Amino acid sequence: MINEKMYELGSKRSTIREIFEYAKTRAAQIGAENVYDFSIGNPSVPAPKEVNEAICRIVNETPSVQLHGYTSAQGDKTVRDKIAANYSKRFGVALSGDDLYMTCGAAASLTITCKALVNDGDEFIVFAPFFPEYRVFVENTGAKLVVLPSDERTMLPDFEALKNALNPRVKGVIVNSPNNPSGVVYDEKTLQTLCAILEDGSARFGAPVYLISDEPYRELVYDKNTVVPCAMRYYKHTIVCYSYSKSLSLPGERVGYIAVNPQMEENRAVYAAVCGAGRALGFVCAPALFQRVAAECDGLTGDLETYKRNRDLLYNGLTKCGFTCIRPDGAFYLFVKAAEGDAKAFCERAKKYELLLVNGADFGYDGWVRVAYCVKTETIERALPLFAKLAQEYGL
Amino acid sequence: MINEKMYELGSKRSTIREIFEYAKTRAAQIGAENVYDFSIGNPSVPAPKEVNEAICRIVNETPSVQLHGYTSAQGDKTVRDKIAANYSKRFGVALSGDDLYMTCGAAASLTITCKALVNDGDEFIVFAPFFPEYRVFVENTGAKLVVLPSDERTMLPDFEALKNALNPRVKGVIVNSPNNPSGVVYDEKTLQTLCAILEDGSARFGAPVYLISDEPYRELVYDKNTVVPCAMRYYKHTIVCYSYSKSLSLPGERVGYIAVNPQMEENRAVYAAVCGAGRALGFVCAPALFQRVAAECDGLTGDLETYKRNRDLLYNGLTKCGFTCIRPDGAFYLFVKAAEGDAKAFCERAKKYELLLVNGADFGYDGWVRVAYCVKTETIERALPLFAKLAQEYGL
Repeated sequence: MINEKMYELGSKRSTIREIFEYAKTRAAQIGAENVYDFSIGNPSVPAPKEVNEAICRIVNETPSVQLHGYTSAQGDKTVRDKIAANYSKRFGVALSGDDLYMTCGAAASLTITCKALVNDGDEFIVFAPFFPEYRVFVENTGAKLVVLPSDERTMLPDFEALKNALNPRVKGVIVNSPNNPSGVVYDEKTLQTLCAILEDGSARFGAPVYLISDEPYRELVYDKNTVVPCAMRYYKHTIVCYSYSKSLSLPGERVGYIAVNPQMEENRAVYAAVCGAGRALGFVCAPALFQRVAAECDGLTGDLETYKRNRDLLYNGLTKCGFTCIRPDGAFYLFVKAAEGDAKAFCERAKKYELLLVNGADFGYDGWVRVAYCVKTETIERALPLFAKLAQEYGL
Repeated sequence: MINEKMYELGSKRSTIREIFEYAKTRAAQIGAENVYDFSIGNPSVPAPKEVNEAICRIVNETPSVQLHGYTSAQGDKTVRDKIAANYSKRFGVALSGDDLYMTCGAAASLTITCKALVNDGDEFIVFAPFFPEYRVFVENTGAKLVVLPSDERTMLPDFEALKNALNPRVKGVIVNSPNNPSGVVYDEKTLQTLCAILEDGSARFGAPVYLISDEPYRELVYDKNTVVPCAMRYYKHTIVCYSYSKSLSLPGERVGYIAVNPQMEENRAVYAAVCGAGRALGFVCAPALFQRVAAECDGLTGDLETYKRNRDLLYNGLTKCGFTCIRPDGAFYLFVKAAEGDAKAFCERAKKYELLLVNGADFGYDGWVRVAYCVKTETIERALPLFAKLAQEYGL
């Protein structure tokens, strides 16, 4: 008599969480140092020291009632103004605090955005491989998730497929760059192509096809010449969903924002719908203390050098073993082609070596696996010989 | 082309928020000391000192990755175990950490609970006066909100109305004791009567009618002999929605929990549906640092003496002026009969004296107004002569 769909969502954990829990059990059996858990995207570097300093300073300096009280539903005005000013400066757009809506992290940013936009019969498009919770978030609003392919060599969107899939029911396209699980960063040209197609679709249908840019990994890029272009600059109907989870290594604290492009048609109405959706879903406001912390630490990151070292070690190591990998420019995931067609069987074989990988099928992309390298560097160093053995089994 | 319903929810603020914003504007015009804002339920006493101490200690003692990382979706296991043990001890029930699901506050507790339970065509019952966001939360799940009356003398539920309203589509009854806006506390006999009716309904329909007990004000009672009975002890199909917002004066930090009665039929399935609903709505986990703070400070409260003093001052003062008031045993609201039939007109007239009250119609109970006394005691002292003038206008 309860809701069957919610029961299923709650009893079948996401595969990632499943492996994460298996890793904990296995660690208890054979020792944590013998389990190579590459399953979960939990930042492995500490928050920048400014975070904890800010927490203690704010707590000591701010009267309790003011600090811990409700903020406006859209977030503390001073916080929003500060973050918007910083965003404008960094990305060369004119964003104001009134375009920002503070959220309880990326998942909230996405559920609120979808809820704000969706009407009966609407569709959202994603490109595989994609973060699997997108399906949960989109379908929970009653909309349909349409999954389009990516180019296997580049893991960039198949734009012909997009052109064919666009229709008046498409409310938005959700993109994620730097990408989970592929680590790919959309370059300027890719973004321009994408936006031109959406622009054309919006014009043809007489209604915006929104670009929902999910950017929790925005600051996590590793090469000097890797730039994450600002989607808002290329397309007026862009809504940015951001979280401080990865940049500030604060995934448990649940703080992020939605930025509604002020250039958008009817941007005030869209912003109001975002506020309404946040209210309907029960968010009230983003955590007050961490709103202030986010404003103070906006733009900082944890130690990116560690992630870069991990990436290089893992990418070079696995490539050397003979595995086919997508070289990740950002985020902290390596996407690896399974050495046999059946990625599930490949993951099982890896498991024999205590190498815990996530099946790409969970990201809508079978035949590949995700290796999360937000782990201790030592874990990678010690795992590489095991990956080599795995490669040998396959005669790579 | 966006969602019209969300647009409306976002552009029409709740009346309470509206008055709260008006108060800020008015304060800027005539000075904060001349505006008597009795609109919002924002705790006016600081968090107990243990809260800020716990924050700084936890931050200094806990490795960053461990502290700020994702917790399990249902909340950190140690946190849940500790809170459940305390709950069991305080209320004489056998609650375990596996019956608790940590949330981002009371609104999240309620949206998640409703979402977990609801199927097409379901209804939830509330008794007027009721917290107006219940309508938003319930209707957002697609369910219907059925509003039943209370006895005007006691503000306790009209049980005859409940008996008549029960039908197989009723999924649950939402109660809130101590009550917002009336301050009434359900005594044991009231709870027993209520539970017997629900027990009977569940038996007749062959499916549980859940009791959703929204208890953010549980600890805010002011007289020695006022006890808030634990609903779980009286009815197996009870789900408790709790928040630390009011007890610990932390409304901005968004932390609370859902407790699923372990005695409930299929309690594991209900708990799983709660987990699924939290996931679908985008909650991921409750804020990690404040989960730990809640576990350490569970059972503490801010300075209740201040609220008690405010209650006594306001209740005695207004009664003396000739107003008809419900004597509040808990929470921090006084429910006052409007001195003219039209409570809106009454609020407007009060506004002339800069007394900002909330129309009871917003709580589904016309003819009355809510006066939130979580303000500075001095504000009440200075407002009383103005209330007296208002009473005079009405010839009370």
